[in-house]
Amino acid sequence: MVISRHTHDDTTRTVISVDAMGGDVGPAAVVAGIAHSAKKNPKIAFILHGPVASLKPLVARKKNLMDRVIFQNAPDTVRMQDKPTQVLRHGKSTSMWSAIEAVRDGKATVAVSCGNTGALMALSMIRLRKLEGINRPALAILWPSRNPQGFNVMLDAGADVRADAKDLLKFAIMGSSYARNGLNLRCPRVGLLNVGIEQNKGHAVLKSAYDLIGSFSGEAKYEFVGFVEGGDIPGNVCDVIVTDGFTGNVAIKTGEGTANLIGDLLGEAFRYTPLSRLASILSVSSFRRLQKRIDPRRVNGGVFLGLTGTVVKSHGSADATGVSAAVKLAFQLAQSGFAQKIASRVATAASLSQP
Amino acid sequence: MVISRHTHDDTTRTVISVDAMGGDVGPAAVVAGIAHSAKKNPKIAFILHGPVASLKPLVARKKNLMDRVIFQNAPDTVRMQDKPTQVLRHGKSTSMWSAIEAVRDGKATVAVSCGNTGALMALSMIRLRKLEGINRPALAILWPSRNPQGFNVMLDAGADVRADAKDLLKFAIMGSSYARNGLNLRCPRVGLLNVGIEQNKGHAVLKSAYDLIGSFSGEAKYEFVGFVEGGDIPGNVCDVIVTDGFTGNVAIKTGEGTANLIGDLLGEAFRYTPLSRLASILSVSSFRRLQKRIDPRRVNGGVFLGLTGTVVKSHGSADATGVSAAVKLAFQLAQSGFAQKIASRVATAASLSQP
Repeated sequence: MVISRHTHDDTTRTVISVDAMGGDVGPAAVVAGIAHSAKKNPKIAFILHGPVASLKPLVARKKNLMDRVIFQNAPDTVRMQDKPTQVLRHGKSTSMWSAIEAVRDGKATVAVSCGNTGALMALSMIRLRKLEGINRPALAILWPSRNPQGFNVMLDAGADVRADAKDLLKFAIMGSSYARNGLNLRCPRVGLLNVGIEQNKGHAVLKSAYDLIGSFSGEAKYEFVGFVEGGDIPGNVCDVIVTDGFTGNVAIKTGEGTANLIGDLLGEAFRYTPLSRLASILSVSSFRRLQKRIDPRRVNGGVFLGLTGTVVKSHGSADATGVSAAVKLAFQLAQSGFAQKIASRVATAASLSQP
Repeated sequence: MVISRHTHDDTTRTVISVDAMGGDVGPAAVVAGIAHSAKKNPKIAFILHGPVASLKPLVARKKNLMDRVIFQNAPDTVRMQDKPTQVLRHGKSTSMWSAIEAVRDGKATVAVSCGNTGALMALSMIRLRKLEGINRPALAILWPSRNPQGFNVMLDAGADVRADAKDLLKFAIMGSSYARNGLNLRCPRVGLLNVGIEQNKGHAVLKSAYDLIGSFSGEAKYEFVGFVEGGDIPGNVCDVIVTDGFTGNVAIKTGEGTANLIGDLLGEAFRYTPLSRLASILSVSSFRRLQKRIDPRRVNGGVFLGLTGTVVKSHGSADATGVSAAVKLAFQLAQSGFAQKIASRVATAASLSQP
């Protein structure tokens, strides 16, 4: 993968390929998000994919953004209800296709999209190909936790609703590699998500995965802590939580929804009496500290692991803050060279698993 | 089911059969919980199951509790790691078995246990039998939500890791009946948990369940809102969330863990500066209001639906507040006569589903 040079500027910039369309909140939020990232990080530039006639005025309205953006016209949008197979067949003119194509062609090192997860996954897998030894690439997300690093990695958060025992082993390998490179953990602790920590709990596939993941901990340089429960996703017993994409998707959305509910109820509680309204004024800085720590939009950027290119999936309902968080993650991953590290780690594991 | 009369008192009291053992926190928390319930509710009495020699001193230490409790000696305890099959074979002397037996024998109308979910389910199913037409009884829990009633019903929260399309239909019927009788909702809105709200998402079994649940909404008097996501569990698009016990269990534990993390981080944020410490003192009543609204211990009491008797499962890590919440729920269910209503509703649905 080549770090592309942005032609509008003398300095070397990392170019992020951004799908401007397909999110629930529209391209204005995406443009606001990349504007925020551009302001924060002078080393970042963008290829922005979508209907240029609509995008240009949005970009022009942001200060100093126009010279950081190359427009790539793509008239169509992948909708949330579109089937991945439809998109694969008829989606060449969509902004999502275009965004991934830019990574395939080496014009950018990473792509970011807020769109339809299934379509993004399908396009990524077809256009970028899977890493040798990977059957199901996975979406890995960061989740606020009690760990020293403040986050846990969880995968699969929804790339594929299924996963067999071997897929779950690969998730453990890829997730721990991500934790090593993204969170600087030398020997990440890996947990396998189940309905209880006892060995006799759960589906048969989980019992097989338990044995597989345990047997590879030495080669893949993680510590296997065994089964973990939903409460351990924001907990401190492990750094990487492995599960199938159905369970993972429901779990994080439940966690997000609960966090949002608490935030709103807290606001209500503080508006209840004159005294509590006074307290809320004095509490503003405390709440800001907390919000910065747990705001789901700041950690919503997931990354597809297991592909020969980097694709960051932002939450469909991501606003500007969410898009900016996803762009930041994309930038970090492009810089760390971890994609190559995962490839070699999976190749080692694959060769070891041969009879 | 007969409302038993407590012999130690002139007034008619609803007797709750309580398993004092098997929770993570020990019998002292259970006794503290029933003491709290006894103080709050003069119409409640208990049969307390466990090693009497250990339990009596705990009860004696609580004011006015001794004359509300009948002890039923059961020397053994079902441990969290015990397999349900072991318990079924060798568990006759356990407090859990004894607690369920009291319901079977009509000595109490409901049983409450903090113990091993799988064992409690297995014992309940074998000793109390399933309702006609029910293959998998389900654990239904209440979850804080944005709905006017403040809670959603979610099932299955972990009674069984599997569920086929017909099971999910029965969950919809039982859950809506519970919402009608427990939350006073005339026509509960039912949602089927998936990774997206689009009809083409998710497993094949969910697509079949979608059709089944939709086709029964008239007969079973609920409104089917279609697929919902994890974020809708604390949301306001439906009142009853239907899912298999694996997904449901992971989802609520993730939600609980996230809520607990936020609570702790909020405390930290308020200890950060002298000003924030002052704010926290002024905020005490606001936090109490919020805590009362969302404290997971207050809503942890789930209920097994689909049995010819009522069994309330309290969280394994429930403290006194949690036990008391479970006892309160048990009392309400015993009074509402909803078990009979579910039985007739399921029977109707079963007869309608015959070809």
